[in-house]
Amino acid sequence: MTQTNVAILIFNGVQLLDFIGPFEVFSITSEINEDQPFNVFLVAETLNSVQCHYGLSFNPDCTLLDSPPPDIIIIPGGIGTREALNQLQILAWIQSKGYHAELILSVCTGALLLAKVGLLDGLVATTHHQALDQLQAMAPQTTVVDNQRFVDNGKIITAAGISAGIDMSLYVVAKLLGDSKALKTAQYMEYDWKPKAKVTPIPKISNSLGF
Amino acid sequence: MTQTNVAILIFNGVQLLDFIGPFEVFSITSEINEDQPFNVFLVAETLNSVQCHYGLSFNPDCTLLDSPPPDIIIIPGGIGTREALNQLQILAWIQSKGYHAELILSVCTGALLLAKVGLLDGLVATTHHQALDQLQAMAPQTTVVDNQRFVDNGKIITAAGISAGIDMSLYVVAKLLGDSKALKTAQYMEYDWKPKAKVTPIPKISNSLGF
Repeated sequence: MTQTNVAILIFNGVQLLDFIGPFEVFSITSEINEDQPFNVFLVAETLNSVQCHYGLSFNPDCTLLDSPPPDIIIIPGGIGTREALNQLQILAWIQSKGYHAELILSVCTGALLLAKVGLLDGLVATTHHQALDQLQAMAPQTTVVDNQRFVDNGKIITAAGISAGIDMSLYVVAKLLGDSKALKTAQYMEYDWKPKAKVTPIPKISNSLGF
Repeated sequence: MTQTNVAILIFNGVQLLDFIGPFEVFSITSEINEDQPFNVFLVAETLNSVQCHYGLSFNPDCTLLDSPPPDIIIIPGGIGTREALNQLQILAWIQSKGYHAELILSVCTGALLLAKVGLLDGLVATTHHQALDQLQAMAPQTTVVDNQRFVDNGKIITAAGISAGIDMSLYVVAKLLGDSKALKTAQYMEYDWKPKAKVTPIPKISNSLGF
């Protein structure tokens, strides 16, 4: 039995729900199906505890240098992306592992990291509603949209803010394993999943949080 | 400025999204409002890393013996509740801290722990759809319902499975701080919050996972 390796990149200042949502979707799908399709793990620069923006700390499974080869890469967002945008090891990992991966998924401001390494050029993409302008500025060759919970470009899928990562992950489960398995996962999570939901446009407010 | 202490009980085998959803709701509400109304922290039996059912490990902020006095207590669920139901220190903490707390919230099978210490007697309560019968058996004096995302009994509020903890937490934010602040948090999270949402009844499936 071959499992699909789902690598979630984490860094200090990551927004928790950005990656815990997808973590739960892929982990639960693996648990409630006999063939356990996914092997989900957290990748960080070192094995030190990683601290989210609100203080909760958690522990990576492996480092950028020794992670199993990812089939699916998930890049969450959060205020910590601002520092991650300047961490060459992280950017190089996204580029090199992304090249071989089957799918690259971003949640929230994780899209900024994909933009930084040029992965969004020529594509349609989205991000957290407070970071749309920043993404557009970083990726002038990208069509940035504000009315989708996620945008599928084939290999690269970007989700809107925070909770939208849950919807995108259920969509990916459906894409890989079929609608009924994704629905079964959503039901197990008691998540009110609308496969074709769009984002309700949210009025822009000042980006004082640097989100 | 006095902050409301939000204590989240954690234990090995906890279901991640059960408590990360509420953690995000209360933490984000605190961040995006100037008076930072909530102080959110994780309480465990010891300061050792706690491992969720799918392997991800994270670190408590304090122990049962030295936690700040909680105004709000959140009890998540997950397969680990089965062991927690036999941990006298945990049960004693829920009883003693719960006595003084303003609100006691359970998510998913966290309701089993409240039932075990008699806190649900005479109330209406809910839990994960696979654990409704177990809750009813443990709490014969409780009216267990399967069609609500959460049930508010005043001091004690129980939520349905996993993602329902997000809805309950937004409801509590609205209850304490007003609808507009809860809506602002939901918008920040890009969560499709329906304040009066009910659970869509889900067909019961076998409880082979012991969930």
